[in-house]
Amino acid sequence: CRPMRQAEESLGYGERAALPGTHPLAARLFTLMEEKTSNLCVSADVSSADELLKLADAVGPLVCALKTHVDVLCDFSPAVSVRLGELARKHNFLIFEDRKFADIGNTVKHQYEGGVYKISSWAHIVNAHALPGPGVVEGLQVVGKPLGRGCLLIAQMSSQGCLATAEYTQAVVKMAEDYPDFVFGFISTSKISSKPEHVHMTPGVQLQNGGDGLGQQYASPVEVICSKGSDVIIVGRGILASPDRLKAAEEYRVAGWEAYLRRLSA
Amino acid sequence: CRPMRQAEESLGYGERAALPGTHPLAARLFTLMEEKTSNLCVSADVSSADELLKLADAVGPLVCALKTHVDVLCDFSPAVSVRLGELARKHNFLIFEDRKFADIGNTVKHQYEGGVYKISSWAHIVNAHALPGPGVVEGLQVVGKPLGRGCLLIAQMSSQGCLATAEYTQAVVKMAEDYPDFVFGFISTSKISSKPEHVHMTPGVQLQNGGDGLGQQYASPVEVICSKGSDVIIVGRGILASPDRLKAAEEYRVAGWEAYLRRLSA
Repeated sequence: CRPMRQAEESLGYGERAALPGTHPLAARLFTLMEEKTSNLCVSADVSSADELLKLADAVGPLVCALKTHVDVLCDFSPAVSVRLGELARKHNFLIFEDRKFADIGNTVKHQYEGGVYKISSWAHIVNAHALPGPGVVEGLQVVGKPLGRGCLLIAQMSSQGCLATAEYTQAVVKMAEDYPDFVFGFISTSKISSKPEHVHMTPGVQLQNGGDGLGQQYASPVEVICSKGSDVIIVGRGILASPDRLKAAEEYRVAGWEAYLRRLSA
Repeated sequence: CRPMRQAEESLGYGERAALPGTHPLAARLFTLMEEKTSNLCVSADVSSADELLKLADAVGPLVCALKTHVDVLCDFSPAVSVRLGELARKHNFLIFEDRKFADIGNTVKHQYEGGVYKISSWAHIVNAHALPGPGVVEGLQVVGKPLGRGCLLIAQMSSQGCLATAEYTQAVVKMAEDYPDFVFGFISTSKISSKPEHVHMTPGVQLQNGGDGLGQQYASPVEVICSKGSDVIIVGRGILASPDRLKAAEEYRVAGWEAYLRRLSA
């Protein structure tokens, strides 16, 4: 681990949960991470509802959050989101719909609340691109804030040739600071906010480095948590492509947690 | 109209359809625009399938394209997309699903092809943010190119505080040039590519200027087509909020076409 520059950087998840400025949903997430000794979010990129629910029930005890792409399920029905909510309560994890909202405020409001998926009714966490300007957050917040939901802004991506510059990322951090009642953190490849109240979640994590031929680039749990200072590892194909998903998920949970303990003791 | 700087800027839609480098879908669009004397795309932001299909049947003869947000329909079924395709053939317009894909290549591939909506099976045109890097186009292209579909890259947005800088927009133009078999133009507030093969479509158009309280900012058809050099006006609430949608659509068709003729004669 690189040396820590600030005292806040060595705060544990549980301590950050207790900070007065931490968003209630972030506090809930930090708390269950401590309880479950897990900073692992599994990316449930599967195409059948049955497989999604089986995966959620299997890895549920090991994860702090389950990330969904509800719009790749070929057989979604409202019963699927109800069942997913039951599993989230049973295993104490949060549901994160990786919708990447990226439209003007009036449109994302309807996309979040309405349609077939009614995302706001079951996803604790959603994410959004800040590119359209603050209206995207304002539109989502109208729907999500009264429900106690929270939003992560996408500040950096793990894909090759991503157009997010340093200036772009800084503008995203500023936007998060402007909407503390709804935005509680970031999708990023590294820690980008100095506020310990903010959660950083990083996709594109694998124990093996490499890529996928469509621009995805992988980093390891130690790199992400320990060197880059992020808080949550998001793992998809590293677990889903394994012949034993449960065993793989446990390996990632341990790797992510050991990296966190190493960061705390640095 | 401002003076034209280049000879190509005064080419008509029909002439641009005939250029050897024009994407087949862009050629089809330019041709039907000439035939129907329409550069109007209606944004069908409605929440019921019945209302969508009635709107498509009513304004179909007046538009070059119908823009949908399929994920705000509360009662989507595969029959809706089949019926929409029939109406597109009947009235000779293209269907543009405004999905704003904005994820890594492997994910957008599944979002485009799969799920409940199977967007690639019915939408002639989709759009994408270039932010994730070229993988987003590569992932979509794997699905859409064999079907003869086309993609517009979002280079500028009409919303307040949009983070797309001049450098960002230039990077988007470059990305379009790199994928000429699938990307045929842009969502932008003005003409940003010097290639007459590229189609520019501009949202946030109303005959009255103003905003919506969630960051949307409106421009008039003359500003968009004549001063800014865009090709297609996208009109949503200017038509949908009118007590007589058909009459309003005809007003926008005439306003857009007159602005185009004024540009040609400048």
